[in-house]
Amino acid sequence: MTVGTAGDPVDRSRTVGAVGERRLIVELTRAATADDPSTTADAHDIVIGSGDDAAVIDTAGPAVISTDTAVQGRHFRLDWSDARTVGARAVVQSAADIAAMGGRTTGIVVSIACPSDTTVGTVLDLNAGIVAAAHGLGGRVLGGDLVDADQVVLTVTTLGALDGAEPIVVGGARPGDVLAVTGNMLGASAAGLALLIDAERRGDVELLRRHARLVDAHLLPAPDLGQGPIAARAGAHAMTDISDGLVEELITMAAASGTRLAITSDRIPVGDEIRSAAAALDTDLRDWTVAGGEDHELLAAFPPHAVPSGWTRIGEVLEGTGVLVDGRPAGGLRGWQSFGG
Amino acid sequence: MTVGTAGDPVDRSRTVGAVGERRLIVELTRAATADDPSTTADAHDIVIGSGDDAAVIDTAGPAVISTDTAVQGRHFRLDWSDARTVGARAVVQSAADIAAMGGRTTGIVVSIACPSDTTVGTVLDLNAGIVAAAHGLGGRVLGGDLVDADQVVLTVTTLGALDGAEPIVVGGARPGDVLAVTGNMLGASAAGLALLIDAERRGDVELLRRHARLVDAHLLPAPDLGQGPIAARAGAHAMTDISDGLVEELITMAAASGTRLAITSDRIPVGDEIRSAAAALDTDLRDWTVAGGEDHELLAAFPPHAVPSGWTRIGEVLEGTGVLVDGRPAGGLRGWQSFGG
Repeated sequence: MTVGTAGDPVDRSRTVGAVGERRLIVELTRAATADDPSTTADAHDIVIGSGDDAAVIDTAGPAVISTDTAVQGRHFRLDWSDARTVGARAVVQSAADIAAMGGRTTGIVVSIACPSDTTVGTVLDLNAGIVAAAHGLGGRVLGGDLVDADQVVLTVTTLGALDGAEPIVVGGARPGDVLAVTGNMLGASAAGLALLIDAERRGDVELLRRHARLVDAHLLPAPDLGQGPIAARAGAHAMTDISDGLVEELITMAAASGTRLAITSDRIPVGDEIRSAAAALDTDLRDWTVAGGEDHELLAAFPPHAVPSGWTRIGEVLEGTGVLVDGRPAGGLRGWQSFGG
Repeated sequence: MTVGTAGDPVDRSRTVGAVGERRLIVELTRAATADDPSTTADAHDIVIGSGDDAAVIDTAGPAVISTDTAVQGRHFRLDWSDARTVGARAVVQSAADIAAMGGRTTGIVVSIACPSDTTVGTVLDLNAGIVAAAHGLGGRVLGGDLVDADQVVLTVTTLGALDGAEPIVVGGARPGDVLAVTGNMLGASAAGLALLIDAERRGDVELLRRHARLVDAHLLPAPDLGQGPIAARAGAHAMTDISDGLVEELITMAAASGTRLAITSDRIPVGDEIRSAAAALDTDLRDWTVAGGEDHELLAAFPPHAVPSGWTRIGEVLEGTGVLVDGRPAGGLRGWQSFGG
């Protein structure tokens, strides 16, 4: 990380290449620290923030750490999302992994790689989204890196605290446990993506407009990540976030736990908007709710009487191996596809 | 982060796209944990390593964190370096920021973005270099991400421990302090790069062969990062690593400290090999020693009698502002260039 020299506010319409990395890092640091909640609450978490070789943070106990990368054209499109949303999404995606261990996000570091002809405004907006999302989770932006690349690549590394709780691993499910998920619109991200693709293919945005909440859920998932620490305190045995699709996460949890997991797809909290979109696009709802990913809601195995409010029971942990969806085995790494085929 | 399913060892000649992210992550996790020193010493540092949503690490005190990104074609070339060296270099670059705070590297997380037609062998070699470098620093690979992108982009985030010492910021230099650096071949990385460019331009590798140590120093700098904690215990007032060139770091330290820094370029530890290369390429030695970056050696300000062995005194901290090299002011963000011009 690099320290820059302060100066005049920078022109948003200029390019990163013209303004230079050092100058821009000054602006990013200013934005990250200007509205930093550490000046009021929990200031003891942060010892040194942006602006030195490295940041120092006191997590007062074991630190949880995870890193996630979002690549332009693969994970996001700047013609579908504004840069602020892209930045915020990258934080949510990384912080969900912290929540999935039962952790509370305390700080993030971010690497922004972008072409030198990217406008300063785009980088400032990416950063603003990152900062806002970190603050929204109760964390801070601790520092970062800014480099030249052929496409925008955002890497967010999130640190979290366990506040005395034991970390919840994915492999701790026990026969007799109940499976539950957070959220009330599982599959919304996959539905939103399908709507965006459909609108682009047909050149008709009417369906998009009618299902704006699903599109929004794809562009910026908003899982209640505070449920991670709540689940840990409630005694969850296993937990993960739903990034690759529910069935993929179930397969991972079953294999890691040495158990069989059975869910009933009707119990998955969905909502009318997804049903309406599935009908409009003539899609099997389960393609989104069971196979679709990137909602970043949490999936956990709890002792039967320990499921906290805010969670929906969708199944059980059994003796055996593998995953059952509505009584039928879901197999392989591409579980839903082979299940559906 | 994602958990995969174990299986047969993977064919190194296949592409990442053909093998798939999940399968490859299994191999990377295996490689990162197979030879993990945490099974013997300092096992208490790591609570949960690769293979869950996030890693948990107990730094027993404040954690130091920094992130650095290396982009193919900008920061490295796979025709100049083997992938193992590229991986190791990314770790050294990030860990140097931890050392510059007085920290000891405890763990890293890594994001590897690469085109889907990258061979598995290349990714395994990148990973092997990352793992070896982390272990060489006494740290471990805690986890990571693997994504598809147009070019190879490596982001290494390093965590460190302060072991009870106060973090050493860049802005703590005080008038009366002595400036000192680690290493005995400052400018070697810049010299090695100049030799590589020269060899490519002239199609003649003879100079490269005669200065192999300089080329090696560019491809994989090997600063003694253990000097960071040593400097902290010795009472250093300010410290940074030399990533952007000595004069840039001096300008940063002077501005952040509110002091004037004066160095004598003759005192910079260089060695005969750099002198020989400078003569061969008809280059002013100071273009490499004063302006050249990426050695990742450490620069610190110490009280006069506190300079530890292994450090070379190159100057003094004075009242005032700005930087003097051999008595002449070095100005601007492109200090050496404007100084030399």
